[in-house]
Amino acid sequence: MEKEYAIEKGLELVKNLKIALVGSIDNEGFPNIKAMMNLESEGLRKIWFSTNTSSKRVSYLKNNPKACVYYVNSDNFMGLMLVGKIEVTQDDELRKKLWADGCEVYYPLGITDPDYSILCFTAEKGNFYQGLKNVDFEIE
Amino acid sequence: MEKEYAIEKGLELVKNLKIALVGSIDNEGFPNIKAMMNLESEGLRKIWFSTNTSSKRVSYLKNNPKACVYYVNSDNFMGLMLVGKIEVTQDDELRKKLWADGCEVYYPLGITDPDYSILCFTAEKGNFYQGLKNVDFEIE
Repeated sequence: MEKEYAIEKGLELVKNLKIALVGSIDNEGFPNIKAMMNLESEGLRKIWFSTNTSSKRVSYLKNNPKACVYYVNSDNFMGLMLVGKIEVTQDDELRKKLWADGCEVYYPLGITDPDYSILCFTAEKGNFYQGLKNVDFEIE
Repeated sequence: MEKEYAIEKGLELVKNLKIALVGSIDNEGFPNIKAMMNLESEGLRKIWFSTNTSSKRVSYLKNNPKACVYYVNSDNFMGLMLVGKIEVTQDDELRKKLWADGCEVYYPLGITDPDYSILCFTAEKGNFYQGLKNVDFEIE
């Protein structure tokens, strides 16, 4: 499988899927997974999620920023794993950009709610698979 | 949310979903995720998957057995994360038990194919969520 094909198909998954699976590491060194709304991304390099500042995941990510983001279409056995790091931020521009209808259920105080944080994921490398074939690639 | 309800609904997810997301840790300490066929389980405590002995994941799990298994129904915002450890085995009884039509695509030499291994996951704790509510529980 060509890397160009893997990246092209990977980008389609990131654009079209509503749910991403976010992997992190808890304080006892175990991997954790959570399904998150796929909100905003820039190529395969940057992906942003919104979350509650008070969540266990945020405290884990502050201790260990190593993370992965996984997209899977189980109908056609196609998947993309991006590996990199997550920075937790309350940057107001980002919080405004990622705000959408329905967010007030999670962050009742609105865009400046102290419990509203953004996870900024930066990918370093990726793996794309389709059926039995898969390919690794670096992301710059 | 009551623990009994969480465990009951969690068991429904494990029984009914075709795909589980398996989290592991690679040799550089990053979390990895892979979608795997949900083949066989015993309550919430034991889950078995089949995989290629030669896969990178198997070498990572031998170095670091910490793992998680995640089930998500994104239609009704219900999810279960089980955290525990994975043992890689080539036990013949298990390999026979987990063999199914189609396995020969992955393991052309059949049940005794050296490239056919079983991942035995044993859960230590769980987290179940539905909508905005979630509950942690121990698994014995």
